[in-house]
Amino acid sequence: MFRFEILKHDTGTGARLGRIHTAHGTVDTPAFMPVATQASVKALSPAEVESLGFEMVIVNAYHMYLRPGHKTIEKLGGLHKFMSWPRPITTDSGGFQVLSLSKTRKVKEEGIVFQSHLDGSSHVLTPEKCIEIQESLGVDIMMCLDECPPYPSTPEYMKKSVGLTTRWAKLCKEAQKKHDNALFGIVQGGVFPDLRRESAEGLTGIGFDGYSLGGLGIGEDSARTCEITESTLAHLPPEKPRYLMGIGKPGDIAQAVSAGVDLFDCVIPTRNARNGTLFTSHGKLVIKNARYAEDEGPIDDNCGCYTCGNFSRAYLRHLYMSKEILVLRLLTLHNLSYYGKLMTDIRESIARGGFSVLLNRVKSPGGKD
Amino acid sequence: MFRFEILKHDTGTGARLGRIHTAHGTVDTPAFMPVATQASVKALSPAEVESLGFEMVIVNAYHMYLRPGHKTIEKLGGLHKFMSWPRPITTDSGGFQVLSLSKTRKVKEEGIVFQSHLDGSSHVLTPEKCIEIQESLGVDIMMCLDECPPYPSTPEYMKKSVGLTTRWAKLCKEAQKKHDNALFGIVQGGVFPDLRRESAEGLTGIGFDGYSLGGLGIGEDSARTCEITESTLAHLPPEKPRYLMGIGKPGDIAQAVSAGVDLFDCVIPTRNARNGTLFTSHGKLVIKNARYAEDEGPIDDNCGCYTCGNFSRAYLRHLYMSKEILVLRLLTLHNLSYYGKLMTDIRESIARGGFSVLLNRVKSPGGKD
Repeated sequence: MFRFEILKHDTGTGARLGRIHTAHGTVDTPAFMPVATQASVKALSPAEVESLGFEMVIVNAYHMYLRPGHKTIEKLGGLHKFMSWPRPITTDSGGFQVLSLSKTRKVKEEGIVFQSHLDGSSHVLTPEKCIEIQESLGVDIMMCLDECPPYPSTPEYMKKSVGLTTRWAKLCKEAQKKHDNALFGIVQGGVFPDLRRESAEGLTGIGFDGYSLGGLGIGEDSARTCEITESTLAHLPPEKPRYLMGIGKPGDIAQAVSAGVDLFDCVIPTRNARNGTLFTSHGKLVIKNARYAEDEGPIDDNCGCYTCGNFSRAYLRHLYMSKEILVLRLLTLHNLSYYGKLMTDIRESIARGGFSVLLNRVKSPGGKD
Repeated sequence: MFRFEILKHDTGTGARLGRIHTAHGTVDTPAFMPVATQASVKALSPAEVESLGFEMVIVNAYHMYLRPGHKTIEKLGGLHKFMSWPRPITTDSGGFQVLSLSKTRKVKEEGIVFQSHLDGSSHVLTPEKCIEIQESLGVDIMMCLDECPPYPSTPEYMKKSVGLTTRWAKLCKEAQKKHDNALFGIVQGGVFPDLRRESAEGLTGIGFDGYSLGGLGIGEDSARTCEITESTLAHLPPEKPRYLMGIGKPGDIAQAVSAGVDLFDCVIPTRNARNGTLFTSHGKLVIKNARYAEDEGPIDDNCGCYTCGNFSRAYLRHLYMSKEILVLRLLTLHNLSYYGKLMTDIRESIARGGFSVLLNRVKSPGGKD
């Protein structure tokens, strides 16, 4: 069922306009997936996420495994029904979350031994378990189990880690029982181009429905992220979708699109919103600033979202200072609306020509991010 | 501009079907006003509040005075525009909040001296100031400044307090500069029927657009609340709207309607929702209970709200246990939907006959609350 088609290649850059077909509908690419870590895009209803133009969200398999349990979700009819999101869903395998959330984490040949961040209970995440969880959830795009080493790591450690991630990827593919959904391999290798190449070639040798770039945006600067992304993509089959995990700022997204990335996810728009930092066509805006106390304008006069259509900066600042729950939602709605529009603009500019112009506008210093 | 018309008297009870006309539209009564203390019905957008059938909300003048400041709101075009709620707004004067939120509170003849619960700064709330604040906000129904003594208070203290509240009410009326909106007097007197009568007669002598019953539901039991409400209403002009402040549970509302109350507000539906306690046609439901972990049914199979139409108890419990923001909103939406339907049912049953049947169903033990 899973199929990726490239509708158009940009002339001046490596950008591609594509479409992913899944059992739960299509996703026009380049696409941004709002992050629904615990099966909810924080503060937004599924209806709102859909209304902003997003066609796929990403949920965390590690979180679903620990709470409420993938078997529970399976019994209840799968993740789409559980979270009332009938469109495509991607899951991250949990390698990164085990790294960031578990106090004790041991990487062994058979898998990752870790303690639950919820109750301290011990668990082993093996490649087979990782696939079992994601198949129980019934998602459209699954990720292989990977080791995501911290930044910085030595080339020696990273080389071993790449080997392990590749062996796990093979086991994941062999463990796959359902084939109407996709399984993506995750390219690791840190900031070392030769190890990225080794990882990419190892995974390509096994053969996956798509390839993710993991372990980026966790310490290195933006320029290095772009550099590694570009050099790695050269070693991946061009006809398969590429997903740059956890990236990023609007400028980074545009630049990665120009390198040929098709899929993105990032907590920046949602997390920044909850911290009161907003993306606007005139640059960033921090809503708690005293200068907005009597400002009757919207967050962004070029934005058509519900928040900008109905509420002033003064009111939003008041809600923020008063710790009113509603503000989390109104600001998240705005930031995701900004990202939704960014992705629409990117797709339209590739379709019509003119992506380079958009790229220069978005990535330029003093620009939108 | 403000006008109250009684469309129909119930035959078996004191219930009345009415309509309040204001500069910002009409309100069909008996009506429940969702509480928007800080100019936001917690977790809901104005569009949602409206979609649930509510025509008026209540905001707290004390909170608006302290933050963001009534003058700021006036500059920004008034409270309706500020909070993007174009329909009628009532404000409470702040007497009750000064009682419950200020650490030091001194009641003097000229007003209430208190410290801000936000920054400890000193303030004096006089009758004149109270009207100035509410007129700056531009609301449709204003409240007089009242003293709301704690429960229990001695009859001696309460008698003095009623005298003061009546003198303040007179000063409030004299301070009123705008007359397109309404000013309600607040009947106090605690649980002493003779003092309630004294208060009601004092205020009626001055003459207000409507009368509120304050100082109830703060300690006495439900039966006493109803008793005091009924006996007090007998001393108020029947042609004026009556507002029972801060009450209450569905059964208490129905009973107060039968006594002739027209307006209500209460934090119960919204606060209970945030604590995970839900009103259903089968009784209360506590969403965090383990028994709902794999329950695929909606909160209430007789409810047509967005939450019940889209999400299972299992999913809502998961969001609640995971502390996901979305759940506050989904549960609030459900509880306010329940209250919205309750009020619609009450109005329709008065209109068509049959209110007594509804009353018995709602107030009966093991009934809806």
